[in-house]
Formats: sequence, structure tokens, C-alpha cells
Amino acid sequence: MSRPNLHLALVHYPVTNKNGDVIASAVTNLDLHDIARAARTYGVKSFYVVTPLEDQIALVGQLVSHWVSGPGSAYNPKRRQALELIRIKKNLEEVISEISALPESTGAPRTIVTSAVIKRPVVPFSDLRRMFGDGFPYLLVFGTAWGLAEAMITSADLALEPIRGATRYNHLSVRSAAAVILDRLLGRRDMA
Amino acid sequence: MSRPNLHLALVHYPVTNKNGDVIASAVTNLDLHDIARAARTYGVKSFYVVTPLEDQIALVGQLVSHWVSGPGSAYNPKRRQALELIRIKKNLEEVISEISALPESTGAPRTIVTSAVIKRPVVPFSDLRRMFGDGFPYLLVFGTAWGLAEAMITSADLALEPIRGATRYNHLSVRSAAAVILDRLLGRRDMA
Repeated sequence: MSRPNLHLALVHYPVTNKNGDVIASAVTNLDLHDIARAARTYGVKSFYVVTPLEDQIALVGQLVSHWVSGPGSAYNPKRRQALELIRIKKNLEEVISEISALPESTGAPRTIVTSAVIKRPVVPFSDLRRMFGDGFPYLLVFGTAWGLAEAMITSADLALEPIRGATRYNHLSVRSAAAVILDRLLGRRDMA
Repeated sequence: MSRPNLHLALVHYPVTNKNGDVIASAVTNLDLHDIARAARTYGVKSFYVVTPLEDQIALVGQLVSHWVSGPGSAYNPKRRQALELIRIKKNLEEVISEISALPESTGAPRTIVTSAVIKRPVVPFSDLRRMFGDGFPYLLVFGTAWGLAEAMITSADLALEPIRGATRYNHLSVRSAAAVILDRLLGRRDMA
């Protein structure tokens, strides 16, 4: 299978807080490192950090430039290779426009939302894994804080089947969830 | 399949640094949160944080008690359910003794080391997944910093097959690697 045209977005607005209110969350340093490293490991083409907040945009810019072109790039070149996948955008529309305009894109990406609880029909991991073979661009969307706002879940093209662990407890961090989802969709395995 | 008798250890000594020297690493707050949440999601029985450093032991103790019995337990009960899996030990021998003495244990746990690069024969994910059905206790061992020291890899009963992503780049954080490994070993899936 040729490498899928897959992109990833980590959304900081609109997401929900503990009480279900729609908020803009703060960027977490380790989200960027962990998800960039997983994206690089699994061959994701770009990792969009989505926030409308100017101070957060500046913060992400500084972090990325430290590791991509600043002192961090010499200290740890592997980290550079991961963090150079990061792009900063104010909203998902900007992300979609940019992916649509890529030379290898055949149109707008199909958006796929992820959540631990989904109230709309979902696409199973195995189906999505197969779909990736069609050459279309795909955008996998993750929410921070307590997850993506309902409006964002409803408006996406597809919703991914939630991860099932081995218990009824289902509270992975977004860092862990992103790694598991990329592994299920793109990892090499010969498991029975 | 009945729930496997699986335990997890996150080792801070002996591990290696960037230059291959054996060091004791500092505990990272988010390692504890993320791995505890993944352990709880996948039905792991306990999560041992291994460090010989007294100040680090005190730090982990404070963090855990904040979330398990302090203010954090009321603020976020889901976090309590995860962090109450944490036990603090000075070395792997203490971990093995404690697991061996559990009422449900039929003897000492089989130790399985994990690493991105393994120089000894490895057990594939699918084999280990099957072995978990035998009722024996198992201890899955993760290293922090640049990974477990070679002596610890050599002395373990088994070494797990490294995760393969979709590229030659293979630099997941220990948080991401632990989540992916638990998912491959214990996650429910109906993937083709």
C-alpha cells in the first residue's frame, strides 16, 4: 500500500470543559511533542495545531522554532524531524484549505472526528484503514480538554469508532489516544 | 478470556541517557497520569513507578495522594481510579516480590522488557497476547529517558517485539509506546 495522504489536527477551540461548556483550551507542550513523534513514526504528512488565541499561536511558534531551527535542532535531530510536521492554524477551515491546495491532493480532505463517546454512526478502524488506499486526502481531528464540541463532531464527514480498551473505563489522554489510533490505522502488524 | 494477571513497571533506574551512560532519570508528571489512565483502560492490575531516589519517591507519593485521597479525588474521580493503580518501589526486585506474594499469583511474574531496539530474540505481540490466557502473572517493563539499561534487557525473562510504525523513524515517547503496546496486547478489536 502506498503511503496514505493523511493529515492530523489537534483542536484547542471549539472543545468542551468538564461541565460541557464550549471553551478554548491552552496548548500543552507535551501534546505537541508526543503527537508529532507519533505522527512521524506512522507516516502522517502534517500535524496541524489549531488555536485562535494569539498568545498560544506565538507560544507554539516559539516551541517549534526552538526544535526545528534553533538550539534544539542540533541537540536532538530526531525531535526536529518530528516537530517539523507541525503547522499552526486558527481554525479547521484554514487547515482544510491548505490540504486542498497541496499538489498531491485530489480535492478537499475527508474530515474524520475522534472521540471517546460518539452519538452518530461511526466508521470502524478496519474500514478506514482500507479507505486510506484510495489516494484521497484525509484529516483526522482530535480534541483537547474534554473533547471536540458537538458541532464539530456533527459537521465532520466521518466519525471514527471509539477505542475500546478492556474495561468500561475509557479515559485515555489525547496523547495516548492519538498514538493508539495511528497504530490501529497505520501500524504494521501480523497479529491474528 | 479472563482478565490477564498483568502488571506494569516504569523504570527510572537503571536507564540510559543520550550518550548511552547508565543514569537515574527524573520522574515526569505526565508519564504517571498518561500511563495510569492507559493501564486502567486496558485492565492492568498495578502500575509500579520504580526509582531509588528519595526525593523522587516523595514527589510521586505527593502526586498520587493528591489525586487518590486529597483534593484531586473529588475534583476528578476518574483520575483517582487511574492513579490508585500506582505503587512506588525502589527497584525491580521489590516489584517482583510484591507481585509474587499476591493471592492470585501462582509464582513470580514473568518479566517482559520493552524497547525500540532489542538485540536479543523477541516474543511477537500475538504470542504474548495468547500467553496471557495461562493465568500466570506477567510484568511488562518500560524504561524512561533513552530506554532500559542493557543489563536489565538481558536479565528479563522475555523481550517484546518492538513497535513498528509505518516509517523507519521510531521515536515514540514512553507514554505513547505504553498505550500502543497495551492496545496491541489487550485492546478489543475486530480488525481484519
